[in-house]
Amino acid sequence: MKRSILILGAGRSASSLVRYLVRHAQAENWTVTVADREPEQAQALIGEGKDVATAMALDATNAAARAELVADHDLVISMLPAFMHMDVLKDCLRLGKNVITPSYVPDALWAMDADFKKAGLIVLNEMGLDPGIDHMSAMRVLHRIQREGGRMEVFESYCGGLVAPESDDDPWHYKFSWNPRNVVLAGQGHAAKYIRDGALKYIPYHQLFRRYTPIDVPGAGRFEGYANRDSLKYREAYGIADIPTMLRGTLRQEGYCDAWDTLVQLGCTEDGYALEMPAESTWADYITAFLPKAAKGKDLRGRVASYLGLDVSSAAMDKLEWLGIFGNGKIGVTGLSPAATLQRLLEVKWKLGAKDKDMVVMAHLFRYRLENRVQEIRSSLVVIGEDPVHTAMAHTVGLPMAIAAKLLLNGAITDRGVMLPLKPDLYNPILDELAVLGIVFKEEESTVTA
Amino acid sequence: MKRSILILGAGRSASSLVRYLVRHAQAENWTVTVADREPEQAQALIGEGKDVATAMALDATNAAARAELVADHDLVISMLPAFMHMDVLKDCLRLGKNVITPSYVPDALWAMDADFKKAGLIVLNEMGLDPGIDHMSAMRVLHRIQREGGRMEVFESYCGGLVAPESDDDPWHYKFSWNPRNVVLAGQGHAAKYIRDGALKYIPYHQLFRRYTPIDVPGAGRFEGYANRDSLKYREAYGIADIPTMLRGTLRQEGYCDAWDTLVQLGCTEDGYALEMPAESTWADYITAFLPKAAKGKDLRGRVASYLGLDVSSAAMDKLEWLGIFGNGKIGVTGLSPAATLQRLLEVKWKLGAKDKDMVVMAHLFRYRLENRVQEIRSSLVVIGEDPVHTAMAHTVGLPMAIAAKLLLNGAITDRGVMLPLKPDLYNPILDELAVLGIVFKEEESTVTA
Repeated sequence: MKRSILILGAGRSASSLVRYLVRHAQAENWTVTVADREPEQAQALIGEGKDVATAMALDATNAAARAELVADHDLVISMLPAFMHMDVLKDCLRLGKNVITPSYVPDALWAMDADFKKAGLIVLNEMGLDPGIDHMSAMRVLHRIQREGGRMEVFESYCGGLVAPESDDDPWHYKFSWNPRNVVLAGQGHAAKYIRDGALKYIPYHQLFRRYTPIDVPGAGRFEGYANRDSLKYREAYGIADIPTMLRGTLRQEGYCDAWDTLVQLGCTEDGYALEMPAESTWADYITAFLPKAAKGKDLRGRVASYLGLDVSSAAMDKLEWLGIFGNGKIGVTGLSPAATLQRLLEVKWKLGAKDKDMVVMAHLFRYRLENRVQEIRSSLVVIGEDPVHTAMAHTVGLPMAIAAKLLLNGAITDRGVMLPLKPDLYNPILDELAVLGIVFKEEESTVTA
Repeated sequence: MKRSILILGAGRSASSLVRYLVRHAQAENWTVTVADREPEQAQALIGEGKDVATAMALDATNAAARAELVADHDLVISMLPAFMHMDVLKDCLRLGKNVITPSYVPDALWAMDADFKKAGLIVLNEMGLDPGIDHMSAMRVLHRIQREGGRMEVFESYCGGLVAPESDDDPWHYKFSWNPRNVVLAGQGHAAKYIRDGALKYIPYHQLFRRYTPIDVPGAGRFEGYANRDSLKYREAYGIADIPTMLRGTLRQEGYCDAWDTLVQLGCTEDGYALEMPAESTWADYITAFLPKAAKGKDLRGRVASYLGLDVSSAAMDKLEWLGIFGNGKIGVTGLSPAATLQRLLEVKWKLGAKDKDMVVMAHLFRYRLENRVQEIRSSLVVIGEDPVHTAMAHTVGLPMAIAAKLLLNGAITDRGVMLPLKPDLYNPILDELAVLGIVFKEEESTVTA
């Protein structure tokens, strides 16, 4: 029997998902529809797959048009911006469709769990990279430790979307492989929360990029890790509610956090108000707006360094200089927040070029007590992208979703309702196929104390 | 003809307002009703004035009860928390009552201006100290400069509610004379915005208490001034839309800002999330939650100092120590934000004692070009409170409102609709009577360049 898959949204992270579905469509007896506000973008993702796949124009905020498409398909995969998922999920409940998203479960969705169960429907969330592969790879190890009778003492988990070493030609060692806005606003809105040795810890945003720790990843080198907003969220779901140390964080290349912190300290990453300077203002004007009255005889770089208490020749100041932020380039926009204005500059400077590759790095540390010894497992993943379209980010977000779609359509998922990929029947087949596709974790095990 | 005045809210700032109205009630032929959730508090404010004034119990969120009271009076004075004014204002429009508030005009109120005008009603806002006396005292000078033909170059205006020198016995030189929550959250929610030499300036919250300037007030000494959220708001209304330098700010005693900044840097003033530590936690636990993993061999004061890059024996660290924030006192609350938790401690430590007096200080600087010279006017106000009830804060918030009520009931206000006290027919009689009551500005004029 032919089954039809609808993909809503043909953005940056949908490329590898669509390619996988198109490539498997004939063998699996699928048809694939990719709907986006820009149908050319959907068409580009489909590529050679015209026999099995169709690109469509859809404004996903148009409820009637969206519902009509949803009604016409067997499975919905929503790659829309996270805030639009709830509308799609409601359509799916009403129209009796299974659905997969890469996004965090919105709180309001749990209230609909009973309804989805009653309707016999499957709602798979957090099926991408982070959240997604992080859950699956962590749960596989946690369940093993549990089976052995280990008692978890430390769980630390870091993930970063970075530039591949072979394409790393800027002093920040960073290029955008996903939504630039999320990178600029990273860490905002809530103090970062984690637990260490049984004590809760809170890091306010303006300290976040000063409180990074070095993270060594086998085969990929040393990174900086800064804490995510809520490291404690999954303690219950992971079955480690009483763990004394748990921290989830984001990876950047060495030197990034010190430099990004200068922008945070200046106020350039704030998003809560609109700057009033005209579009013809220069980046030097932009930076000057965050500085006190000029001390005489200092250039802008010197003023920024002395305001922030930094050495004028520090690596962080070199990174700012490279952005052109002390120069006479025009900001070119007006009425945007400091963060949105800065984003315009970063989108140019941190663009993944036509020959560039990105890199995804994930690293877990599990420390547990087993009988009278303390054991450690370090598990890590390094994925290099193919090109600026089929990025490591698109692979790691899209492929677990694609595999989940296959499992779902083949009837391999027996649970119903709202779920995360925390159980073996989901994470085992997905992690196993990901490994075949080159997305494979390395594991090191050691005894800390005997 | 007898006129009835309704005062909604008998909080901290209503005492001098009620006393004035009660004292003038017989001569002016007024009756006064003071309504509060706690009628004893209303009764206490009325004191000896039982012949002319009545205390009533009112839950101001009860729309029917509130409307009934409003309907029964000729003039409404709302001393409720600012967020409740809109409900009262709507009652007044519907029931045809004039109304006075000490609070900022909510944006939604301007949309009702035409309706109030049509109904022939008067809505006086920003009639307290700041906003209130700041507008009136500034406008009197600005109009004089305008009449002389001066062109404004600089307007700076600062105000602070402080402790009187004779009651100043703590190292912060600060006690609460108004809403503690507003003090703890001061400066949050929006970068501070001002203009200097024609260039817009923005100060993010985490830099605000580092960017203070010394402000000398004749007869009161030297203070620290930090910028208010929006210094630019009144440029149009003041008739100085093109002024190149304008800054409005808040005054604190010397040393306060450095010490408060330590709490900001730690994250103790954040209000956006709930701490999860139990009520039996100590203040040392509270502070430790904001610190990274302990370096060995340092006490908590040493850890905080080194985390913030401060000398362990600095005056700021002494102020923290005095709060008991490194000690074993219990926090006593749970599930509150860092700011609300801290507020519980400050409410004890910064309480205005039974014999304490507070102090209000306001200082304006006007610099303007007149013919070929640059002139400066410095205008300042220092008010010392009577006692912890009839504070300088209650005087300066309540008396301009009381005088405005008298003017209004005597038919001296000819405009209709939503207004601020920016015109001579309002500010002249109010400032003149305030001066008689001891609330009097000192003025110094000088020529800067000839």
